[in-house]
Amino acid sequence: MSQKLLGLIAGNGQFPFLFAQKAKSQGYRVVAAAVRGDTSFLLRFFVDRCVWFKAGELQRLFAFFKDAGVQQVIMAGQVNPHNLFNPHVAFDEEFQSLFKAIQDRKADTIFSAVAERLKARGMELVDSVFLLKEYLAPQGTLTRRGPSLSELADIDFGRNIAKAMGGMDVGQTVVVKDKAIVAIEAMEGTDRTILRGGRIARGGAVVIKMCKPDQDMRFDVPVIGPRTILTMARSQAGCLGIEAEKTLLIDRQACIRLANKAGICIVAA
Amino acid sequence: MSQKLLGLIAGNGQFPFLFAQKAKSQGYRVVAAAVRGDTSFLLRFFVDRCVWFKAGELQRLFAFFKDAGVQQVIMAGQVNPHNLFNPHVAFDEEFQSLFKAIQDRKADTIFSAVAERLKARGMELVDSVFLLKEYLAPQGTLTRRGPSLSELADIDFGRNIAKAMGGMDVGQTVVVKDKAIVAIEAMEGTDRTILRGGRIARGGAVVIKMCKPDQDMRFDVPVIGPRTILTMARSQAGCLGIEAEKTLLIDRQACIRLANKAGICIVAA
Repeated sequence: MSQKLLGLIAGNGQFPFLFAQKAKSQGYRVVAAAVRGDTSFLLRFFVDRCVWFKAGELQRLFAFFKDAGVQQVIMAGQVNPHNLFNPHVAFDEEFQSLFKAIQDRKADTIFSAVAERLKARGMELVDSVFLLKEYLAPQGTLTRRGPSLSELADIDFGRNIAKAMGGMDVGQTVVVKDKAIVAIEAMEGTDRTILRGGRIARGGAVVIKMCKPDQDMRFDVPVIGPRTILTMARSQAGCLGIEAEKTLLIDRQACIRLANKAGICIVAA
Repeated sequence: MSQKLLGLIAGNGQFPFLFAQKAKSQGYRVVAAAVRGDTSFLLRFFVDRCVWFKAGELQRLFAFFKDAGVQQVIMAGQVNPHNLFNPHVAFDEEFQSLFKAIQDRKADTIFSAVAERLKARGMELVDSVFLLKEYLAPQGTLTRRGPSLSELADIDFGRNIAKAMGGMDVGQTVVVKDKAIVAIEAMEGTDRTILRGGRIARGGAVVIKMCKPDQDMRFDVPVIGPRTILTMARSQAGCLGIEAEKTLLIDRQACIRLANKAGICIVAA
C-alpha cells in the first residue's frame, strides 16, 4: 500500500462519519465495515469502500479487512448491545469461539478479545479518537450558564457512582438529583436512562456520563451529541457532567446551542 | 401500657398486611401510619388504629406515635422514592431539617436519620422482620425446576455486581443474561427493571435481588411477592436469585406456584 489505509468498524450515530471525514481529509483511504441495523446507509458517501455485515459475522469481517490490506482498524460508533440477544443475529464460528473463551460478556471483555483476534491476524485496533483529539471536550464550562452549587455537588456525588459502575463495566451514565441516585444505565443506552431518570426526577436532574477508571480509548469512548442534549431537554434535566479530554463531543456547536436554548449547562472536568 | 404496642409505618405492597396480621396474632396492638398514595386503604381492617399521612409529614408522624404511647416502630413496605421529587409532596420543617443535616439522599442515609430522630423522642426503630422470621426465604432451590449451570454462573456473576451496587446504596436488582449486565435498578423499582431487562434479553434472563453488604434489617429489606414472579413471567425471565434468610417472601405458596407454572426457578443462597 502506498497510501495510508484504515479499516473502520462503523456502529451507529455520527461518530463514524466524523471519523471518516477527518481520516479522508488527512489523506487516508478508509474501508468501512458497516453493521446492518446500526450503521447509517449514508456512510458509503464518506468512505472509499463500504461493505455490509450482519452483527454476528466476525470471520467475514476479519477476512474483509485482511483482503483489503488493512493493518490498522478503528471502532467508531456503538454496535447495539441488544444484538447479543437478538434471535435474528447468528453468531458465526469465530464469534462463538470468542464467547467460549471469555469470562463474561462485559463490553470491555468482548472488545478486548476482538482486538486480540485482530492482532493474531496482523491487524491492530487503534485508539478510536487518534484523529479526533480536537473533538474531545475541553476542561471547563462549555455553555453560557455555569452549574449551581447544588448541581456541582450532584456531579461530584454522581461521578463517584459512575466511576464505580464503570469499574465494573456496567454502564457510563448516572442520573442524580439532590444527591439521590435516580437512574443507572446498563444496556438500554444513555438516552433511555436520561428519559427514565427525567420522569422520576421531574425536572432539574443532573446527568453524569463518565469513562471507566481505566478507559481503553480503542472502544466505548463516551460520546455526546445533539441528540443527548435534546433528550436532556425533553427530560427537563438541568446539567450534564462529562469527562474532559476523554469524551467525544459530536457537533459541539449544535450541542452548546441546544443546551443554551434549554438552559442546560455542560461541565467537563 | 399494659398491652404490647407497635407503631407501624406502612408503605405499599403486602408487607404491612403480613406484619400487622402477625403482630395482632401475637397479641400486639398495632397503630399504623399509612402513607397517602402508597399504603392500601384496606390496612385499617388489619390494625387497631390507622391514620393517614402525606409523604412529607414527619413531624405529625412523630407526634402521632408519641401520643399513642408507641415505643417501638417498624417500617414495612416501600414508600415510593419518587415522592422525593413530587411537587405535590410538601416536606415539613422536620423533614427539611433532616435533609439539611444529611450528606446525601440515599435510602440508607434518609432512613437512618429518621431512626435517630425517633430515638431522640424515646422511640426505637426495630428490625422490620422480627416477627416474620418464618417468611424469610430458606436456603436452596424453592421451585420444582432447579437452575441450569449457565443460570448458576449468571447468578454468581450478577450477585457480585448487585452487592457492589448495594454497597453504594444504588438499588437491589440486577438483570443478567449470559454474563452480560442487561439492566440495573436505581429508583424505578424492581418491576420496571425486570421488564426493561426482559425486553433487551428477549427471554432467559436471570434476575438477582440482593441485600446490601451491611443490610440494616430495619428498612429496605428485599421483598419478593407474586407480582415479582408475574413480572418475571411477562419478561420471560428464567431464574430468580435471592439471598437466603434476608429476603422476605410474601405469599410463598403463590410465588412458587406461579414460578412453577412459568418454568421459572427461584434459588436462595
